[in-house]
Amino acid sequence: MIRIMGIDPGLRFMGWGIIDVDGNRLRHVASGVIGTDGAESVPLRLCELHGRLQALIREYAPAEAAVEETYVNRNGSSTLKLGYARGVALLTPAYEGLPVAEYGAMKVKKSVVGTGSASKEQVTMMIKRLLPGAEIYKADASDALAVAICHAHYRASSLQVAQGRHMA
Amino acid sequence: MIRIMGIDPGLRFMGWGIIDVDGNRLRHVASGVIGTDGAESVPLRLCELHGRLQALIREYAPAEAAVEETYVNRNGSSTLKLGYARGVALLTPAYEGLPVAEYGAMKVKKSVVGTGSASKEQVTMMIKRLLPGAEIYKADASDALAVAICHAHYRASSLQVAQGRHMA
Repeated sequence: MIRIMGIDPGLRFMGWGIIDVDGNRLRHVASGVIGTDGAESVPLRLCELHGRLQALIREYAPAEAAVEETYVNRNGSSTLKLGYARGVALLTPAYEGLPVAEYGAMKVKKSVVGTGSASKEQVTMMIKRLLPGAEIYKADASDALAVAICHAHYRASSLQVAQGRHMA
Repeated sequence: MIRIMGIDPGLRFMGWGIIDVDGNRLRHVASGVIGTDGAESVPLRLCELHGRLQALIREYAPAEAAVEETYVNRNGSSTLKLGYARGVALLTPAYEGLPVAEYGAMKVKKSVVGTGSASKEQVTMMIKRLLPGAEIYKADASDALAVAICHAHYRASSLQVAQGRHMA
């Protein structure tokens, strides 16, 4: 059995989801969205994301983390902000000693729905089917669970998994 | 007297510089560059940057931090990587409880050299003149000292300074 944390990064909303994987069996453990206040400064919003991700990792003790590689076809300023959030999503679990893998959005959708062009609604529907009992209030949480499931499929073969280490 | 840490963010090279400011008098305390290994995974490189910045903050105990706002006119993938590094540069001092200010490159150059179009060489030359005794081995360290000096000029009036807080 392995416990995996999936993260769908964003500065405004950071989705997270934790699943247990035992062979082909998947179980929903917990999921949700960390929201930050757009009226606060970026450094404080990044602190909020870092602190809350850290608390979740310490509470649920996942063994590995997977982060969705997000699109960069927006303007420079949006991409930079996404970079801040994604930087925290990659840093925090690695800093807590977890190996962190990254998966592109197409690969995530394909591994959950069967097609890389699936809509958000299709992803959420499949997540509810694959993880009975998971209450999904926001699409960001469902995307985070999707990247965790994707990692469950690919983790054995994934060369993207880099061993994390604790530097503190 | 106030001690300021300036940071010039980058994933490959993160410049840092610490100065003491007493009225109009500036004194170089320490500066350098944190390099990360391009062959390592991004999560581990971000851990390295976070851990080393944190160690520097704890060693030198600056009261405030200033980060250079970098250009975003590159391609999406470069901007995203810069975003990761800049996210850490904003997060780490804020997480250590320091207020963090941000200054655009033009403003930094103007406050050090007198013109926003100054070359890297001009910035380094002025840094050596303003901070006698500072040994500058890499331009990233000189840029970091420049943003610290810029903050020394603007900190009183700067509305960009957001109070940091510790969330751990």
